[in-house]
Amino acid sequence: MVELRPILLVVGVLLATLGCAMMIPALYDLAVGNDDWQIFAASSTLTLFVGIGLAFANRGRTESFSIKQAFLLTNISWIALTAFGAFPFAWSQLDVSYTDAFFESMSGITTTGATILTDLNNAPPGILLWRGLLQWLGGLGIIVMAISILPILQVGGMQLFRVEGFETEGKLMPRATQIAGSLTTLYVVITAVCAIAYHVAGMTIFDAVVHSMTTIATGGYSTRDASIAYFSSPAIEVVAIVFMIVGSLPFVLYLKEIRGGRGAVFSDSQVRWFFGTVAIFVLLAIMAYQPSQPEPAETRYITIVFNVVSIMTGTGYATTAYDTWSSMAIVMFFVLMFIGGCSGSTSCGIKIFRFQVIFEMIRCRLQSVIYPQGVFIERYNGAPIPDTVTSAVMGFFFLFMLCFAVIATLLSLLGLDTVTALSAAASAIANVGPGLGQIVGPVGNYAALPDAAKWILCVGMLLGRLEILTVLVLLMPTFWRA
Amino acid sequence: MVELRPILLVVGVLLATLGCAMMIPALYDLAVGNDDWQIFAASSTLTLFVGIGLAFANRGRTESFSIKQAFLLTNISWIALTAFGAFPFAWSQLDVSYTDAFFESMSGITTTGATILTDLNNAPPGILLWRGLLQWLGGLGIIVMAISILPILQVGGMQLFRVEGFETEGKLMPRATQIAGSLTTLYVVITAVCAIAYHVAGMTIFDAVVHSMTTIATGGYSTRDASIAYFSSPAIEVVAIVFMIVGSLPFVLYLKEIRGGRGAVFSDSQVRWFFGTVAIFVLLAIMAYQPSQPEPAETRYITIVFNVVSIMTGTGYATTAYDTWSSMAIVMFFVLMFIGGCSGSTSCGIKIFRFQVIFEMIRCRLQSVIYPQGVFIERYNGAPIPDTVTSAVMGFFFLFMLCFAVIATLLSLLGLDTVTALSAAASAIANVGPGLGQIVGPVGNYAALPDAAKWILCVGMLLGRLEILTVLVLLMPTFWRA
Repeated sequence: MVELRPILLVVGVLLATLGCAMMIPALYDLAVGNDDWQIFAASSTLTLFVGIGLAFANRGRTESFSIKQAFLLTNISWIALTAFGAFPFAWSQLDVSYTDAFFESMSGITTTGATILTDLNNAPPGILLWRGLLQWLGGLGIIVMAISILPILQVGGMQLFRVEGFETEGKLMPRATQIAGSLTTLYVVITAVCAIAYHVAGMTIFDAVVHSMTTIATGGYSTRDASIAYFSSPAIEVVAIVFMIVGSLPFVLYLKEIRGGRGAVFSDSQVRWFFGTVAIFVLLAIMAYQPSQPEPAETRYITIVFNVVSIMTGTGYATTAYDTWSSMAIVMFFVLMFIGGCSGSTSCGIKIFRFQVIFEMIRCRLQSVIYPQGVFIERYNGAPIPDTVTSAVMGFFFLFMLCFAVIATLLSLLGLDTVTALSAAASAIANVGPGLGQIVGPVGNYAALPDAAKWILCVGMLLGRLEILTVLVLLMPTFWRA
Repeated sequence: MVELRPILLVVGVLLATLGCAMMIPALYDLAVGNDDWQIFAASSTLTLFVGIGLAFANRGRTESFSIKQAFLLTNISWIALTAFGAFPFAWSQLDVSYTDAFFESMSGITTTGATILTDLNNAPPGILLWRGLLQWLGGLGIIVMAISILPILQVGGMQLFRVEGFETEGKLMPRATQIAGSLTTLYVVITAVCAIAYHVAGMTIFDAVVHSMTTIATGGYSTRDASIAYFSSPAIEVVAIVFMIVGSLPFVLYLKEIRGGRGAVFSDSQVRWFFGTVAIFVLLAIMAYQPSQPEPAETRYITIVFNVVSIMTGTGYATTAYDTWSSMAIVMFFVLMFIGGCSGSTSCGIKIFRFQVIFEMIRCRLQSVIYPQGVFIERYNGAPIPDTVTSAVMGFFFLFMLCFAVIATLLSLLGLDTVTALSAAASAIANVGPGLGQIVGPVGNYAALPDAAKWILCVGMLLGRLEILTVLVLLMPTFWRA
């Protein structure tokens, strides 16, 4: 049997951290004189109590995790954080069910951005701040996980991104703590810069802070029902475009760049492919842009780039009902949802490096079809790609599509129409946020879905965020044997 | 440069064969007193003339084909046969453009079954017979190609199906001729049995003959606008189900079975997976079956099985507007289109063995995620799968999806609505026939599409039929170099 004590210790520490984070909206609500502060104080107390209790009950020396423990830890901690993060929603004046609260919390922590709240403009500020914090913490969590745990778990080809000195399983903790520290500092600084930029561009300080947290996390929660469209400001949209992109590039490259590796960011092939992909889809979007009421030329291109970047990076801010542009736009945005940003960023989806690996494989296959005797080597960033990475990427891709198909089928069975079922499934598993169509589209809302659909989508969001395999291995009998 | 003479010799022989085949509708039209016989006689003369001319001009000893010659031969012969097979449509009383005629011919020869003809019930019998013959010949052509040429070209993992004695490139022709002979005999016999079964079940002899040819070819051309629904006969539907399945299993296994290999068909893992997949989708279809006017219980299950088998095998006969059953039915039939039958059959699509290879890869990946030090071997039909096959299958899969996405995007750009664009693209590349929705759905017709869309779909049908790579290698500069 897997030894649970070290896992519960870490989960306890994480919950205690979440409990501390809940104090922030509590203090803010108190400061602005909103009664909701009591809800946050109560949630915080409960979460701190459980977290500290778990940590104390399971304290002891833990220097290393086995592979199985690492899988369990990852799953349990994300689910536990979601469950406790839901309490402020469930207990607040918003009058939402625990299902809705769990959905909102999962959508926050996985940086998806799908919401069941319908009247954000009049929501208590503490709740809006909490939504931002959940996404911000989720974004930070996934960056740290992407460099510390996922490469070791060899999930979906993430072993390509092993950071030097991380190889030895047993020495995970100290080095992870150190890198996590640098990344957290960097993350805070970038968020602050983003908040200042939003404020300069015209947002109130509160809006700027919340939006900066959800932009850098490529999450997409807004303080307004109309999302970024509320501000009708090209300047704000440009700030959003820049920082959604910043959130979608590998954060370790920023560290490298700062530590003297001049040009580390733009010489990375994944970053180049990312910008190339954005460029291609912007061109396609220009062709697909045939809205009933076209915008003036000076802001049209900002609108197009904004929506392409927002969906591709999985942020999910909306400034327009892009799914009514044309029938091509629907197809294009549907495909765009799956793509995602770079690995080691806050964005989700299939991710650029996997397309690079697939492209390399196809290139070599085509050449070896013509020259059956030739030897063709797949390369990533100049280095040969190990066979295990290629097959892990392929496996990831098929499981991603399979999970998508299963979720879409289940949603259809619950009676959702085709566009809603397909796009909600894609949006959940790629952690985008909005889907397509009347119900879950950019101007819609997830509140109207049946409870069963919300739980299915929660599973989808978790699967997508934890790179599918991390969750699915738990379903294998082999995992629990021996 | 590639030596073209042996290629043109074979193309000439194939065209001459097509020209001979055109005599059949000519004689039939003459016998029933239809003036269209002159059209067929003229087409036949032209095709024979060009074919025999080419063959004579390029005659000489050709004992072997290089890989490049084999690729060129495959592409040129399918396009040439389509171009000449279109003449009877273009010149007939039907008054269709050459674009439409080419589309109809391509859809026939690739056994797709998408049609631009709107008044089949009153079409000249020669034309109906010619449509059946085109699919029948196309089906035979693909079976022979699947065992003779594709394994040597190593296209999309087809090297799994090398027949013993075929390995040496140089000895292609004699052995291919011999196996092609046995297969042709078998194909004729099965078609005859199918025709008799249809006739016994209530079709006229003419209808039975044409439908038997398009059933065994999993093509789906019918002599009636309403397709099989016209006959409203459960018995006919059962015959169709049986022979669509017969057409979707590997034909070499029938030869094995006949030559004393008892149980060769049902002990094959691909065949078992095929039936398993049919069973799963029949169950899903039972859940998705919520039509506005339900059928009586005794024929409901025949309807469900019929439509699942028809779409999965890429036949494309319709008995009902299944895309109006429910929103789940749309999603399900959309997925079903891609699947296809077994390799070495007349059906198209991704094909069952590729899903088996993908499943094996995922199984091994998941196990090696849990046990990073373990060694897990992918198996097909008991034997280990070579790495080159796995990566060829993956490459095929991605190129298939990429071609699908490009075709769907182009169709969207031409202004088709989303469901039509997506389903027409899927239907073309998987050689199914009908798509989904009002225009190209089971009760619709391709005639209304713009000409550009028809040419794009022709490319899609050819790509799908020739296993994608066979066509795409011609686009690589490497192919033309050296």
